Amino acid sequence: MSHSLKPTADIQAAVHADYLHLHANPELSMQEHQTAAYIESRLAALGIEHFRCGGTGVVGVLRNGPGPVIAFRADSDGLPIKEATGAEYASTAVGQLADGTEVPLMHGCGHDTHVASALGAAAVLAQGTEGWSGTVVLVFQPGEETGAGAAAMLADGLWDKAPVPEVVLGQHVFPFAAGTIHLTPESAMALADSLEITLHGTQAHGSQPQDSIDPIVLGAHIITRLQTITSRELDPRDAAVVTCGSFHAGLKENIIPDRAVFTLNIRTLTEAVREKVLAAVTRIVTAEAAASAAPQPEITTLYRFPRLFNDPEQTGNVATALASEFGEDRVKLVAPLMGSEDFGALGDAIGVPNVFWMFGGADPSDPAPAGNHSPFFLPEYRGALDTGVRAALAGIGHYVGC
Amino acid sequence: MSHSLKPTADIQAAVHADYLHLHANPELSMQEHQTAAYIESRLAALGIEHFRCGGTGVVGVLRNGPGPVIAFRADSDGLPIKEATGAEYASTAVGQLADGTEVPLMHGCGHDTHVASALGAAAVLAQGTEGWSGTVVLVFQPGEETGAGAAAMLADGLWDKAPVPEVVLGQHVFPFAAGTIHLTPESAMALADSLEITLHGTQAHGSQPQDSIDPIVLGAHIITRLQTITSRELDPRDAAVVTCGSFHAGLKENIIPDRAVFTLNIRTLTEAVREKVLAAVTRIVTAEAAASAAPQPEITTLYRFPRLFNDPEQTGNVATALASEFGEDRVKLVAPLMGSEDFGALGDAIGVPNVFWMFGGADPSDPAPAGNHSPFFLPEYRGALDTGVRAALAGIGHYVGC
Amino acid sequence: MSHSLKPTADIQAAVHADYLHLHANPELSMQEHQTAAYIESRLAALGIEHFRCGGTGVVGVLRNGPGPVIAFRADSDGLPIKEATGAEYASTAVGQLADGTEVPLMHGCGHDTHVASALGAAAVLAQGTEGWSGTVVLVFQPGEETGAGAAAMLADGLWDKAPVPEVVLGQHVFPFAAGTIHLTPESAMALADSLEITLHGTQAHGSQPQDSIDPIVLGAHIITRLQTITSRELDPRDAAVVTCGSFHAGLKENIIPDRAVFTLNIRTLTEAVREKVLAAVTRIVTAEAAASAAPQPEITTLYRFPRLFNDPEQTGNVATALASEFGEDRVKLVAPLMGSEDFGALGDAIGVPNVFWMFGGADPSDPAPAGNHSPFFLPEYRGALDTGVRAALAGIGHYVGC
Amino acid sequence: MSHSLKPTADIQAAVHADYLHLHANPELSMQEHQTAAYIESRLAALGIEHFRCGGTGVVGVLRNGPGPVIAFRADSDGLPIKEATGAEYASTAVGQLADGTEVPLMHGCGHDTHVASALGAAAVLAQGTEGWSGTVVLVFQPGEETGAGAAAMLADGLWDKAPVPEVVLGQHVFPFAAGTIHLTPESAMALADSLEITLHGTQAHGSQPQDSIDPIVLGAHIITRLQTITSRELDPRDAAVVTCGSFHAGLKENIIPDRAVFTLNIRTLTEAVREKVLAAVTRIVTAEAAASAAPQPEITTLYRFPRLFNDPEQTGNVATALASEFGEDRVKLVAPLMGSEDFGALGDAIGVPNVFWMFGGADPSDPAPAGNHSPFFLPEYRGALDTGVRAALAGIGHYVGC
Repeated sequence: MSHSLKPTADIQAAVHADYLHLHANPELSMQEHQTAAYIESRLAALGIEHFRCGGTGVVGVLRNGPGPVIAFRADSDGLPIKEATGAEYASTAVGQLADGTEVPLMHGCGHDTHVASALGAAAVLAQGTEGWSGTVVLVFQPGEETGAGAAAMLADGLWDKAPVPEVVLGQHVFPFAAGTIHLTPESAMALADSLEITLHGTQAHGSQPQDSIDPIVLGAHIITRLQTITSRELDPRDAAVVTCGSFHAGLKENIIPDRAVFTLNIRTLTEAVREKVLAAVTRIVTAEAAASAAPQPEITTLYRFPRLFNDPEQTGNVATALASEFGEDRVKLVAPLMGSEDFGALGDAIGVPNVFWMFGGADPSDPAPAGNHSPFFLPEYRGALDTGVRAALAGIGHYVGC
Repeated sequence: MSHSLKPTADIQAAVHADYLHLHANPELSMQEHQTAAYIESRLAALGIEHFRCGGTGVVGVLRNGPGPVIAFRADSDGLPIKEATGAEYASTAVGQLADGTEVPLMHGCGHDTHVASALGAAAVLAQGTEGWSGTVVLVFQPGEETGAGAAAMLADGLWDKAPVPEVVLGQHVFPFAAGTIHLTPESAMALADSLEITLHGTQAHGSQPQDSIDPIVLGAHIITRLQTITSRELDPRDAAVVTCGSFHAGLKENIIPDRAVFTLNIRTLTEAVREKVLAAVTRIVTAEAAASAAPQPEITTLYRFPRLFNDPEQTGNVATALASEFGEDRVKLVAPLMGSEDFGALGDAIGVPNVFWMFGGADPSDPAPAGNHSPFFLPEYRGALDTGVRAALAGIGHYVGC
Repeated sequence: MSHSLKPTADIQAAVHADYLHLHANPELSMQEHQTAAYIESRLAALGIEHFRCGGTGVVGVLRNGPGPVIAFRADSDGLPIKEATGAEYASTAVGQLADGTEVPLMHGCGHDTHVASALGAAAVLAQGTEGWSGTVVLVFQPGEETGAGAAAMLADGLWDKAPVPEVVLGQHVFPFAAGTIHLTPESAMALADSLEITLHGTQAHGSQPQDSIDPIVLGAHIITRLQTITSRELDPRDAAVVTCGSFHAGLKENIIPDRAVFTLNIRTLTEAVREKVLAAVTRIVTAEAAASAAPQPEITTLYRFPRLFNDPEQTGNVATALASEFGEDRVKLVAPLMGSEDFGALGDAIGVPNVFWMFGGADPSDPAPAGNHSPFFLPEYRGALDTGVRAALAGIGHYVGC
Repeated sequence: MSHSLKPTADIQAAVHADYLHLHANPELSMQEHQTAAYIESRLAALGIEHFRCGGTGVVGVLRNGPGPVIAFRADSDGLPIKEATGAEYASTAVGQLADGTEVPLMHGCGHDTHVASALGAAAVLAQGTEGWSGTVVLVFQPGEETGAGAAAMLADGLWDKAPVPEVVLGQHVFPFAAGTIHLTPESAMALADSLEITLHGTQAHGSQPQDSIDPIVLGAHIITRLQTITSRELDPRDAAVVTCGSFHAGLKENIIPDRAVFTLNIRTLTEAVREKVLAAVTRIVTAEAAASAAPQPEITTLYRFPRLFNDPEQTGNVATALASEFGEDRVKLVAPLMGSEDFGALGDAIGVPNVFWMFGGADPSDPAPAGNHSPFFLPEYRGALDTGVRAALAGIGHYVGC
C-alpha cells in the first residue's frame, strides 16, 4: 500500500471537526436528514460525485482510473438515549418517535466515528489519486439500528445507481483499545428476528377460571417450552438465543384477561439454524395454544436482521492488510458476536463478498470503558478516528492501492 | 311476623324513585358523597336518627321499645363501568380515579337496589312501629367493591357509636328470578386476597442472556408452579382459586428487563385454607427466585376480603322466615360462591352471627339476564325492589316482629 | 322396625367365627374361591337359596312373602399386603399375582367384616321371618379393589338371575368409633379413572439432543400442564384430582430414551366433571406431543370406578332408620370421599336408587387407629361386627320391616 | 520423517491378524485381561520392554538413544453391545456385568483398531531404530468407555514408572473415509459429568394429594427448569448440554410415591462452563425442592470425563506432519465434538501438551457407514489400519524422526 494513502494533519483536523459536529447532532434511524445534508456538503467540498439513495442514505463515488470497484459502508444513525457522558460536546438533541413522543438523542453506538472516518478516508483518496487506481463507492447508510437502512438503499436501487463493487467493506467501533482491530471470518454477527405474539384467551372473573381460557397461564407454558429450542432442538455447538423481552397481559388482579402479548428476539448464526428456530417457535406456540383449547395465536414479524457473513478469503486478505498497518499483534481473530448488523445485506444482495471488522475506539488506559448503547458510551475520539481512518484506508487500499 | 311490616303503595313508589335516582348517580367506592347525602336526606325525611361513619357510610338507628337489637346492612358504591343497558334511566355519570383519570360510572353490581330496598324497609319500620319491637341499626356501607368500606366503618367505631346488635343481616341482588332467595349456611362467599409481586432480575441485551437474570422466565416458572397449590397441596374438596390477573414486564423485544410485576387473586372458603395457600405462594415465589439466583421478590398485599360465614343456626331461622314470606320453593340452599364480600367483617368484628342472602332481581321470563359487573347488568327493578324490601322485612321481622 | 330383627347371642357368636375364619383366609380380587365356597356353605346352613354369579360372586335370596324387593351388597376380596397387626388371628396367607409372583395377603380393607356382617344379618332375617315381609337379595360381590367385581356380576346377568330390587344397600367399615355411622347424600365417593400414557420420542446420545425427540422433557411439560386442569379448567367447587402415580423413562444417563410411560389416576365426583377432565387430559397430552414434534402418544385405560351416587331421598330414609337404631348423635352426614367404590354400578345398572353408608369399626378409645389398606389396619372386631350387623338390619328393615 | 518409518508387508499382515484377533475377543472396561495378555505377548515378541499399570493397562517403552521422550496412547476396551455387522470375524463373546448379568460384547467403538495400529507402529519403530532417536512410551489404556482407565493408570503411578514424556499423542477411529484425518485445536471433546439425583417426597394415596409431597411433579418442574441453564445462563456461543437420560418414580397409578430418581449427563467444553453448569444444577434442584417443601435432594456423581484440550502449537505441528503423510486435503480442522474421552487426563496430570486426532476408518465409497457404538459399526479394516498405523508413525515421527 502506498504511503500516499495517509491522512494529512489538515484531514485529521477535519475528521475531528466532522466527528464533533455529528456527535452533537444525532438523528433517529431513517430520519437522518441533517446528517445526510452534512455528508453531502462534505463530499461536495471534496469534489466527490454523490447522490441520495434510500431517503437519508448518501452514496459518494470516487472514480480514479482502471482497477477494481469496491464499496465501503458507514452507517449514520443515532439512538433515543439521553447522553450521560458529561463530554463538553455531548448531545442535547431531541427527536420525535413515530407516535410523536419527544426523545433525547445520542450517538450511543459510535456511528459518528464511522461517518467521520469514512469522510476522512474519502478526503485522503480524493487528494491522493496518484496513490491508487480503481473506483471506490462510499455508502453512507441510514437506519442501521432498526435494520431498515440497508434494505431501503437496496430497494432504492443502490447497485443500479452506483458501480457494482467486487467486495463490500465496513467497520464498527467498539470500546476496546484504539489502534487494534478484531475480525471474524465467516459468520461474524447474528441473524436476528423479532416477533410479536398475541395469545387469545377468554376473559372471566378471577374466581371463575372454569369460564376462562387463561392467556397468562398459556403464556407461562409457552415461555418455559421455548427454552427447549436451544436446549434440546439445536446442536449444542450452534449458537442461538431465544429471548422473550416483554410480556404484557391483564389490568386487574381479579380478572383473567382475554389476551396476552409478548415479544421474542431470536439470534442465530446461520440461515439453517434460524429457520429451525423459527419453525420451532411457531410449532410450540401453536401447540401450546391447542393444549389450552385457545384460538390460534397471531405471530407477526417486527423486523429481522440478515446474516453478516465475512468471506473467508477476502477477510484473510483484509486482515493481512490491517496487520501490515497496525501490527500483527493488534489484529485479532475473534468469535462471532451475537449482536446484529444489516451490513451483510449490501454484498449478499449482489452476491459479492462482504468484509466487516471492528476497530477499537477506547483509550487503551481505560480499564472499563462503557459499552455501545450505554448513556456513558464515549470513544476517545482522537484515537478512535485515527484508527477508523487508517483501517478504512488499509482495507480499501488492499484493493485499489498500488 | 305481623302484617303491618309490609310496604304501602306510597312506600313502593318512594323505593322506585330512590332506585331511579341512585341508578342514575353512581359513585366510586369510598367517594359516595352524593349517595351518602341522599341517604341522610331520606332518613331525615323518615325521622330516623342517623350519623355518618367511615367517611361516606351512614348509620340509621330505629329504636322502638324493648327487644332485640339487630343490624341490617346495605352497600352503596358503584363501579367504573360504562353502562350499556340502554335503559332510559341509565347512568351517564363519570368519576375520577385516584390518578385523576376520568371514568364512566355505573351501578353495575346492583347496590342501588340494596340502598333503595333498605330505605323502603326503613320506611315500613318507621311507619309501622306498632308491628315490631326492638332496635334496628341500618348500616349503609360504602366501598364494598374494594373491600375497604366495612373496615372503614369499623375503624371509625361503628359498634361504639351504634347499638351493638345480636345479629347482622345483609342481602345482595343477583340475576336470578325476582321473588326468589338463595342462601348458603356456613361459608357463603370466598375469602379473597390480592397480592402484587415484583420480581427482580438483571437487565441485559437479548443476545446476552448470560449477563441477565431473566425475570420473565422466572415469572413463567412461578406461574406454572402456582398451579400446583390447588392441584397438589389442598384437599380436592376444598374450593380455592389462585388467579394471576396481570403480568407485565419489559419494553423491547431485544432487552431482557430487570423486573416483572404480576398480581394474584386468591379465593378460599376458610381461614385455614387461606393461610395454607398464602404460605404456599410465598414459599413458591421465594424458592423460584432462588432457583433463578434472583433477589428476593417483593410481595405486597393489595387488599383482602374477609370470610362471609353465615351462622348456621341463624341462617336456618332466617331461611324459615324467608320461606314463609316467599314460599318454600322460592328459597333455595346453594353452594358457596367464589366471589367475595366484606359484609362478614361487620359481625365478625364483635363476634355476633352474620346472615347474608341473595335475592333475585331478574325478570323471571328473561332466559339469560346479564351478570353482575357486566355493562348490560340491569335488574327488572320493580320485581327486584319488591323482593329486596320484602326480604329485608322478613329477615328483620324474624327478630323484632311480634 | 320389629324387635325381632336383632341378632341373638348364637348369631353373634357365629358372626365372630365367620369373621375370624375370613380374616385368616383372605384372597385376591376375582380369586375369592375359598371365600365364595365358605359363603355358600354358610347360606346353605341357613337354608337360604343361593347361586354363583360373576365367577366368585355369590347371591343369596330370602323370599318372605309379599313386600318390597331390596338388595344388600357385601364385598369379599382381600389385598396383597403383609399383615403386621400382630393379631393372634392375623393372616399368613399368600396368593399369586397374574404374573405368578407370590404375595402375602391380608383383609386390609375390612371386607371380612362386610361378609360376616351380611351373613349375620342373613341369619337374623332367616330365623326371624315373622318380623319382616318381602324379598332380600344378598349380593356377595368379589373384586371390589380392582373395580372388576360389580361389573363381572352385572355381566353375568345378576339382575336377570336375582329378583330386581327397588333399592340397593351397602356398607363399608372405616376406622372411626364402632357404633357410629357416616353417610353422604348424592355423590358419596369419587369416580376414578386410571390411564397409562406412553410417550414416543426419538433416541439419541445425550450429547446430541438435536437428533432426539426427548420424551422426558415432553413428559415434564405434560405433568406441569396437567396441573392446570384442576387449577384452571374446573369450577373451584368441583372436587377433582389428577395424580401421576408413576413415570418411567430411560436406562442410562447419557442416552436420551425413545419413550416414557406414565400413569394417571383421576378422581371426580360427577360424570360431567369426569368427562371434562378426561377430555382435557387427552387434549393436553396430544398438544404437548405436537409441541415436541413427537408422534401421537398412546392413552390406554387401566380401569375405572363408576360413581357412587346415594339417592338423596332414600339416603335420608335410611339415615333416619340408622339414627333410630344408633341414636341421632351417632349418625353423621359427611363430605364426599375422594376414594372409590364400584358399589354404585349395582343400582345404576338398573336405574334404582343406591344407598351406601360407612360404619365405624374402631375401638372408641383408640386415639389413632390405622387406616384402611395399612398393614396395621385392624377393626376391634366385636364392636365392628355388632355395628355392621345392626346397621345392615336397620337399613334392610327400613324397607321390609313391619 | 525418514522413509524407514513405514510398515513392511509383514508388519501389515501382523496388524491385520492382531485386529482380527482383538475384534473377535472384546472385553468389558477394566476387565481387559485377555487383551492385556495379548498385548504383552506381542510386545514381548517385538522385544519391547513393558509392564502392567492400572490393572489391565500395559505400557511399552522403546528407548532408542538420545532425543525427545513422547507417549502414544491406545485404548483397549470393548462394549456390551451385540454385534450385528454380519462380518465373518464378528464377535460372539460375552461378558459379565458387575451384577453378574451376562452381556454380549463387541468392539463397537473401534478400540481394536487403536491397539492393532499401535502395535503396528511399535513394530515399525522396533525394527527401524536407525530411522529415529529418542524414547517412545506406548500406553495401552483400559477402561476408556467408563472414564475409569486413564485415572486408574495415573493412580497406579504411570508417570513414575514410565519415562515422563514431553507430549502425549492419541488417536481414535471414526466412520469417515480411511486415509483422512480430523483434528481440533484447543477443546476437542467435551468434559462430561454424570449425576444421579434422588428427590424425596411424601407418599400418599392418589386421591389425597394434600397429604403428599409429590416427587413426580417436583421432578417435572426441575426438568423444565434445567432447560434454562443452557438457554439463559450460558453465553450462547458456549456449547453445553444438560441431558436427563432417565427418570423413574412410582409403582402404582393411584399412589403418589415417596421418591423419584433421575440421572443427568452434562457436556461442556471448558472447565469454567462446566462449573457454571454444575453450580446451576445444584442451585435449581435445591430451590425446586424448597418450592415443593420437600427435603433436600441427594445429588451424587456417577462419573466424570475430563477435558480433552489439544495444545494449539503442538496440534499445529502434528497436523503439518499428518498433512505431509496423507496430503493437505486429507487433514481437516473440525469443530469440537460433544462426545467425551479420558485421554486428556494423561498429559494434564503432568502438565504436558496433549495432541489427539481422529482417523478415518470407513470405506470411502460407503455412503452411510454406521456410527461408533452402533451394533453395525464396522471399519473397513485394511484401510482403517493402514491409516491408523501411518498416522501414529507420522505423529510419533514428528518428534523422534530424523
